Amino acid sequence: MGFKIAIVGSGAIGSYYGAKLAQGGGDVHFLMRGDLSKVRRNGIHVRGKGEDFRVNNLNCYNSTAEIGACDLVIVALKATANAELIHLIPPLLQRDTMLLTLQNGLGNEEFLAKHFGGERVLGGLCFICLSRASRTEIERYDLGHILIGEHERPSQERTRQIEAQFTACGIKCALAEDLALERWRKLVWNIPFNGLSILAGGIDTAAILGDESLRRATLAVMQEVIEAANTCGHALESGAAAQQIRRTEEMGPYKPSTLLDWEVGKPLEIEPIWGEPLRRASAAGAETPGLEIIYASLNSLAGRVGNRRKI
Amino acid sequence: MGFKIAIVGSGAIGSYYGAKLAQGGGDVHFLMRGDLSKVRRNGIHVRGKGEDFRVNNLNCYNSTAEIGACDLVIVALKATANAELIHLIPPLLQRDTMLLTLQNGLGNEEFLAKHFGGERVLGGLCFICLSRASRTEIERYDLGHILIGEHERPSQERTRQIEAQFTACGIKCALAEDLALERWRKLVWNIPFNGLSILAGGIDTAAILGDESLRRATLAVMQEVIEAANTCGHALESGAAAQQIRRTEEMGPYKPSTLLDWEVGKPLEIEPIWGEPLRRASAAGAETPGLEIIYASLNSLAGRVGNRRKI
Repeated sequence: MGFKIAIVGSGAIGSYYGAKLAQGGGDVHFLMRGDLSKVRRNGIHVRGKGEDFRVNNLNCYNSTAEIGACDLVIVALKATANAELIHLIPPLLQRDTMLLTLQNGLGNEEFLAKHFGGERVLGGLCFICLSRASRTEIERYDLGHILIGEHERPSQERTRQIEAQFTACGIKCALAEDLALERWRKLVWNIPFNGLSILAGGIDTAAILGDESLRRATLAVMQEVIEAANTCGHALESGAAAQQIRRTEEMGPYKPSTLLDWEVGKPLEIEPIWGEPLRRASAAGAETPGLEIIYASLNSLAGRVGNRRKI
Repeated sequence: MGFKIAIVGSGAIGSYYGAKLAQGGGDVHFLMRGDLSKVRRNGIHVRGKGEDFRVNNLNCYNSTAEIGACDLVIVALKATANAELIHLIPPLLQRDTMLLTLQNGLGNEEFLAKHFGGERVLGGLCFICLSRASRTEIERYDLGHILIGEHERPSQERTRQIEAQFTACGIKCALAEDLALERWRKLVWNIPFNGLSILAGGIDTAAILGDESLRRATLAVMQEVIEAANTCGHALESGAAAQQIRRTEEMGPYKPSTLLDWEVGKPLEIEPIWGEPLRRASAAGAETPGLEIIYASLNSLAGRVGNRRKI
């Protein structure tokens, strides 16, 4: 059914959406490293609200050369590993191959566009919280909604085809007619919550919102990001801040992905979530002292902890 | 010579200034706890740029009742222990006893004024970096300049008498005609540097200023504090930020006192340095998102680490 799909980056996000597409009958091919033999043997087991399934006999490979040309490449590596894409992607390309990045923050579509041509590029925003209980087990904690859009273009026939295949495989999917605007809207949440969850000592969203001062700080940073988005030409409404805080309270305690990475010592996606938005805001003339403090502190903190780990 | 002086709080600051005053012939009485027997036996040994001396036969006591009424009480407890002053101070009081707090930040003069009467209260700002190599050894890393002023009054005859005694004992001393303004001026430095040194992973002033983004964040917070001071009615000039950054570069690598406390697990003076300035700025209608982020993050972080230590 549908496209030949490669999954590049088989962490929690890549494994989850790849498993859903495979379970729905999709022609899915996973690039894997250390996980290859375990996944070949045990398949992938997904557990979450309202779903519990195992997919076996997955197509797993050690290299993208073995996968060969695809119609759709789903990029789900951490953005900190983007340099690897320069040699991982080419074996997967044919004339009309689409590159759909599910990575966080800003700059990933531009990275793919620069190296492989902007006309191939799409982006997806995943509203999902996943963790890997083991190499073959994925736990999902919320709905798993995904928003897909073209890079610097409105939706096209191919975008709707992707949406249709995702939907057919049980992935709640919608189209973003203005992907850049939706990326900024998601950053209104990620910039304060992902950052403060680490700087404030490793706390979840409920702890942040339950502390009067952290809550005010969160709201102030949200407003700052909304104004920066507006200055950059993305018309985000100022009510987005209060709305996101309300929704976050309804969600209950939640650990942002960057905090989960931090807790297990993985590299943090600092540039796409904080660095690139800061640079764009600054280039457009927006004042973002809160974003600057969070970016600068996290960047230094991550570098220091990285150094300590090396020692 | 001069006043009968009590030193309440014989940490690094109290021990240093007390030792200087005693060495210069002052009638100095130290309130001590665990350090009492060691200081009685060994005196206090001060080492620093251009000075290296030991004072023996110090007057050390277990309680302020043993010290009795004084002319001048120097308060050098951590502000986090202020509640203890409510019972420590009364035995030291006679009609004209002066209370000089050398504590950091905002709110300490007001605390003393509330409990013991505002007319007694003076404040001192210590521009000094000290550490205790042991209970009887103080290391000094810079000049040790001190600025003394009356609480909500210009200098008086008694203020000049204190200045004269400090100067006679080799303490570089000047009078602050507007103590509140000088407290805000010092906060322009302490709020960003003390805060970011911890949030950014335990780094000194040179590391902060050497990181392009931390430097911009520092400058932004400084400007915010200057504007907050102005909104609160303290006429700080906007050039204070650039000037303090220049002076900090000249000083070379320097660990803010809060970072030193953090490194050895002591409680942090969060309320006087961040909480009280934030509340005053907010009450006056100033916007201080950077201060709010630093305060909220540090407060949560310190609480979490405190909790871990208890466990």
